[in-house]
Amino acid sequence: MNEASIITIGDELLIGQVVDTNSAWMAQELNKAGIRVVRRVAVGDVWDEIWNALDEEQHHADIILITGGLGPTSDDITKPLLCKYFNGKMTVNEEARQNVIDIFTRLNRPIIERNLLQAEVPDTCRVIRNYRGTAPGMWFEKEGRIFVSMPGVPHEMKGMMELDVIPALCRRFNFPHIAHRTLLTAGVGESFLAELIQGFEQELPANIKLAYLPNYGMVRLRLSATGPDEKVTELEIDRFFERLQGLVKDYLVTNKDEPMERTVGRLLTRKGCTICTAESCTGGYIAHLLTSIPGASEFYDGSVISYSYEAKEDLLQVDKTILETRGAVSEEIVTQMAKGALKNIGSDYVIAVSGIMGPEGGLPDKPVGTAWIAVGSKGGIFAKKVHFRFDRIRNIQLTATTALDMLRKFLLQES
Amino acid sequence: MNEASIITIGDELLIGQVVDTNSAWMAQELNKAGIRVVRRVAVGDVWDEIWNALDEEQHHADIILITGGLGPTSDDITKPLLCKYFNGKMTVNEEARQNVIDIFTRLNRPIIERNLLQAEVPDTCRVIRNYRGTAPGMWFEKEGRIFVSMPGVPHEMKGMMELDVIPALCRRFNFPHIAHRTLLTAGVGESFLAELIQGFEQELPANIKLAYLPNYGMVRLRLSATGPDEKVTELEIDRFFERLQGLVKDYLVTNKDEPMERTVGRLLTRKGCTICTAESCTGGYIAHLLTSIPGASEFYDGSVISYSYEAKEDLLQVDKTILETRGAVSEEIVTQMAKGALKNIGSDYVIAVSGIMGPEGGLPDKPVGTAWIAVGSKGGIFAKKVHFRFDRIRNIQLTATTALDMLRKFLLQES
Repeated sequence: MNEASIITIGDELLIGQVVDTNSAWMAQELNKAGIRVVRRVAVGDVWDEIWNALDEEQHHADIILITGGLGPTSDDITKPLLCKYFNGKMTVNEEARQNVIDIFTRLNRPIIERNLLQAEVPDTCRVIRNYRGTAPGMWFEKEGRIFVSMPGVPHEMKGMMELDVIPALCRRFNFPHIAHRTLLTAGVGESFLAELIQGFEQELPANIKLAYLPNYGMVRLRLSATGPDEKVTELEIDRFFERLQGLVKDYLVTNKDEPMERTVGRLLTRKGCTICTAESCTGGYIAHLLTSIPGASEFYDGSVISYSYEAKEDLLQVDKTILETRGAVSEEIVTQMAKGALKNIGSDYVIAVSGIMGPEGGLPDKPVGTAWIAVGSKGGIFAKKVHFRFDRIRNIQLTATTALDMLRKFLLQES
Repeated sequence: MNEASIITIGDELLIGQVVDTNSAWMAQELNKAGIRVVRRVAVGDVWDEIWNALDEEQHHADIILITGGLGPTSDDITKPLLCKYFNGKMTVNEEARQNVIDIFTRLNRPIIERNLLQAEVPDTCRVIRNYRGTAPGMWFEKEGRIFVSMPGVPHEMKGMMELDVIPALCRRFNFPHIAHRTLLTAGVGESFLAELIQGFEQELPANIKLAYLPNYGMVRLRLSATGPDEKVTELEIDRFFERLQGLVKDYLVTNKDEPMERTVGRLLTRKGCTICTAESCTGGYIAHLLTSIPGASEFYDGSVISYSYEAKEDLLQVDKTILETRGAVSEEIVTQMAKGALKNIGSDYVIAVSGIMGPEGGLPDKPVGTAWIAVGSKGGIFAKKVHFRFDRIRNIQLTATTALDMLRKFLLQES
């Protein structure tokens, strides 16, 4: 069957102290390589629970990838457990030992005995080199199943997956090809989209699946096709993806699997234009989204985050009288903020935002979640009021996404 | 045993398109209520895999919480499956039907047949009201096990958990008390910490566990205690937590389970002082962290994000000649940026950052990941060079966290 299951180990996952981003990344990479992930399981640093998970997952998948529990501290029991599970004996691996010494020498830090313990591995595994840390990975085989154990530190695990695990799995198996196509829509609900593409969905062949992925007030649609032949599968999925794009064209943001800010960045780069932002309630989140994109300096100049009244006056030359009569959350002020940023930063386009994100600070006529958004250029500014009813962080995210979408439409209307 | 298992349903979790934040939140809330989460399992929108997960998880836990797969689109098969699994018949629930109508009326949107289908539930469940969406939750019982199905939309699930599920579980069972204490350290590695508190760790009684949670170059230490009596358990964990804080005092950032930015915000509020930032490479991320905190306007004034050379000159009055001779990533420029922001925004304290976050843009003497950070006040600016070796996003996060920690130390040294 050549399907994979991911086991993540660590009490922190079960008390919710950290969000598991590792298994999402692993699932993505495995899918690209044509390996279907059928299950993901998280268990605590508890001997029996880890043991049971190893026992059970081999009934669901023949590739079992394990992360976490390999640190140098005593809450990490995974390595001795794996040693026993795969009937091994702990021995020092010379290559892993040298790796620990190299890393500490490079960092110019003293090595303590506990660090060198990292080089001990069961003699029944193949050691996977860790280029980015001291804990080696381990590859075990048992009754036709492959078990790979990696550290939980994301960039260490990622290095091992890319350089060793995925290439080794691909050499071993002949996976069917998996192709995905994703598009992003905005301004339309999941149910309405479903009505719109009902006929299309019913005509999909058995090897192509459609999924609805709502997020941040937008809906992503994803087609997934499997087939023995890469070319045939890619052609087939492209044909259906073309039709799907036509059906949702009025709401289509992008036909790539990318966030809104990347679409906006590409539109700006294509025009050879730049943008700045003037943010109050979003507190730099729009700037952060835009600058998360590699090469953002091509289309992004800078921003003014004006949280206080003084900052709005001093950095954006907002009119004090209007600030006092209309309040900071008003069409007049957000328009002035946009104009001030355009003038002071000298960009071609601007996004300005002023609102009340909560949980406190709401007014009778401006409840928590209210924001004014302005987008535009020297040629003109367009402003709109929005109202979201969520918690502070989600209100910030939704306001930012809505502002980027307004700018995107402004850019498209112009051209 | 009164332990819980969380099943999340959705193909998007298995191809890694979304990160599962629901189960982390659920685990947190269950723990607070004294319910231990023993496993988390993610499966796709596949009939047999969901069925198997229901069969299996009841061997691990007696409370099984399920999220996802309840949307109105045809990739959602969870509801009919639950109907069959619990030997029910689909019937319209009048209260759920009225809820759908109310929501659409409030949003002033037309109802389509597909929306009303949300009100159909198996007649073998107790319906859990969804105040924030159209899909009702379902509470089933079978052979002494409780199964609760909720939508995957985070704020809908959260509403049901808080208003119905957790109170109902607490009424039913007599959970042991669980207490957690968390502290945050910076500037010290996991192994070194482990050496430092080795003796302490060995003396911990069986009902208290210690966990190391490394994140963003910092290490969180968490104590978890269980016991039948709330008062006794809280007193016992406080005693050990006190000792632990003493042992790590040189590296202690906060003894609360909170992010660095909240600690910094509290220090500023206590002084009655405000802060601004001047960010280049972090692109507003420090401003975003500070403004994510409710009530940030008490201690945060605003920021200048100066990505381009022009923005650095125009908004922060950075010296053009120095910019050209030393480059933007230099001690001189980051110090000028800090002074410019202090002057233009008028805050008491400032953080300024300039660097190269990658993947492109590295120079022989300033490789990717290099950043200059300045912190200070009108009384003086202190600057430091850092170098991180990760991807763009992680470099941004680490630079931001390091900058906040530098400011924290600056604030503490002053007082």
